[in-house]
Amino acid sequence: MLPAEVMQQAQAEFINWQNSGSSVMEISHRSKPFIEVAAAAEQDLRDLLAIPDNYKVLFLQGGGRGQFASVPLNIASPEQYSLHLQTGSWSKGAVSEAAKYTHTHVVAKDTVNADNKRIIPDIADWDLPEDILGNTAFLHYCPNETVDGVALHTPPKLPNVELVADMSSNILSAPINIADYGVIYAGAQKNIGPSGLAVVIVREDLLGKAQAQTPSFINFTLAAEHDSMYNTPPTYSWYLAGLVFKWLKAQGGVSAIHAKNLEKAQLLYSCIDELDFYHNNVAAEFRSIMNVPFTLANPELDAQFLAEAEATGLHALKGHRSVGGMRASIYNAMPLAGVEALVKFMREFAAAQD
Amino acid sequence: MLPAEVMQQAQAEFINWQNSGSSVMEISHRSKPFIEVAAAAEQDLRDLLAIPDNYKVLFLQGGGRGQFASVPLNIASPEQYSLHLQTGSWSKGAVSEAAKYTHTHVVAKDTVNADNKRIIPDIADWDLPEDILGNTAFLHYCPNETVDGVALHTPPKLPNVELVADMSSNILSAPINIADYGVIYAGAQKNIGPSGLAVVIVREDLLGKAQAQTPSFINFTLAAEHDSMYNTPPTYSWYLAGLVFKWLKAQGGVSAIHAKNLEKAQLLYSCIDELDFYHNNVAAEFRSIMNVPFTLANPELDAQFLAEAEATGLHALKGHRSVGGMRASIYNAMPLAGVEALVKFMREFAAAQD
Repeated sequence: MLPAEVMQQAQAEFINWQNSGSSVMEISHRSKPFIEVAAAAEQDLRDLLAIPDNYKVLFLQGGGRGQFASVPLNIASPEQYSLHLQTGSWSKGAVSEAAKYTHTHVVAKDTVNADNKRIIPDIADWDLPEDILGNTAFLHYCPNETVDGVALHTPPKLPNVELVADMSSNILSAPINIADYGVIYAGAQKNIGPSGLAVVIVREDLLGKAQAQTPSFINFTLAAEHDSMYNTPPTYSWYLAGLVFKWLKAQGGVSAIHAKNLEKAQLLYSCIDELDFYHNNVAAEFRSIMNVPFTLANPELDAQFLAEAEATGLHALKGHRSVGGMRASIYNAMPLAGVEALVKFMREFAAAQD
Repeated sequence: MLPAEVMQQAQAEFINWQNSGSSVMEISHRSKPFIEVAAAAEQDLRDLLAIPDNYKVLFLQGGGRGQFASVPLNIASPEQYSLHLQTGSWSKGAVSEAAKYTHTHVVAKDTVNADNKRIIPDIADWDLPEDILGNTAFLHYCPNETVDGVALHTPPKLPNVELVADMSSNILSAPINIADYGVIYAGAQKNIGPSGLAVVIVREDLLGKAQAQTPSFINFTLAAEHDSMYNTPPTYSWYLAGLVFKWLKAQGGVSAIHAKNLEKAQLLYSCIDELDFYHNNVAAEFRSIMNVPFTLANPELDAQFLAEAEATGLHALKGHRSVGGMRASIYNAMPLAGVEALVKFMREFAAAQD
């Protein structure tokens, strides 16, 4: 879902962009007008996240999953370790991909507490062998697990270890301190724009370390040297991302959207917790404010729930095929009214089954 | 440039696609409606190019340049050779990238004939050492060099060597016999759709050979097994490509568009050859029908030529920065009227300098 205002603007200027007689999609990525679009999008993202000057912002391809390979290829050597905090299906996928290019070590996996709610182990309980720590390129984690709805709201910092975050489903949803990270990456299709674009934020001193086997089109250093135009970038997605960044600024920036996101999430979790009819299996401290998975007490009602929701105009509530159940994704572009409508439907559906 | 009819349709249904209340950009790539879009695009491309059933069609990312790495990683071993016919800047770029993953051997480079016109050496004159031929995974060439305007209109076939073609700038411009090729690939942004999408056509028996170091998101076999949805594909570009394929069918298919392309190219080359004022440096047999580079007899007039062309509504005529001069790209979407307007301007500009 993209902000309605962004989609309206994009539609209005779809064929005749800035009175050029062409679509922004049709102009060369090397033309002055597109370079201006690209630079403005980068600057707006820098403003929104307060990105320091010693970080490069790259607009690449391959989505989040592409970075599972790109990150170790670019910032680690085959002799080094990548550490992995495994908290759900996305951070798990990163481990097997990294293993092609580095040694890997899983420092901890999500588990359950006494109430059988999912939690992420405290850093004090992680498995951190000294010899591995001394030969580590980075620690990878996913602060917001899209499929599982498990989130880590504060960055897990290890001394002298670069932190790499897959923020595909939570970038721009809450303020972050960029300096906590060596690399942040995000597939665009959740909070930034259309699929096919990936944003990478990388500290400059991590450039220049790519393994010889790194394909040029995913080489961070080449991308940085060529303003992400070493190869033809996904220009239309970049342009749309720029519109989304401007929309976010107009909303008051990341702090303001964070407040709205908290309000939306609280409304939905309150409904789930209040009614025995619904259940979310994540401990409160580790609940995502972007992806809210829940199950019905009686799974035989799943199909009916989804059909009635669809008929009410509430789409895409089916949980990921790997976990089943339901999942409401309430990204930045989802207005409060959308969550209110969902909660209203959920209360009515539960009441009707009594 | 995309066909005007395609852009109009895309604009009309930009926000409310098929009365869904959403943009096609906003629906999940795993949803039934998108899977139908994706499958229809593939089938239309199969129809247009008469792709046999034993070839897979993949919709990937990374443009043409991404495939410089993907092809050797997917179908060659590090011990094998990739052969390269080097006829311009694109096929040259493929050599250095392939060298990361295979041994490489350049069989021939473009040269000039007695008239100082660029030609591609005949296969009889290639450097083909027996020991290398016996250990070769594929021969790579670029049938249409975008920057140089050099084309090879018949596929160069070596016995028992798979042929790989970078058709980024000429796919769908003329009929081809798919069975001549092991792999055909194309970045989308010339004749297919917006940038950020790459189409790969690969014969099934070449799958399953990927090197261990191949990033999963560019693994042809994984893509084939998951209908190009192992990772999130660039959905909007895929949809637009589908509209372009339907438009091409409505134009009468590839044979019909080829006839139009020949007419456009002949009109432009005739103007260049007729007037001493303009010059194209490629021998007639090897001239591209997509990209027509030319120089002015007096390069000091270049800036004036470009400025007056721009004022007449003729855009993007500046040659690639690596070669200078002018270049008219007359892809499928360029109507005959566009080339007529260009030729009229060129004749008038030349006359005005007398």
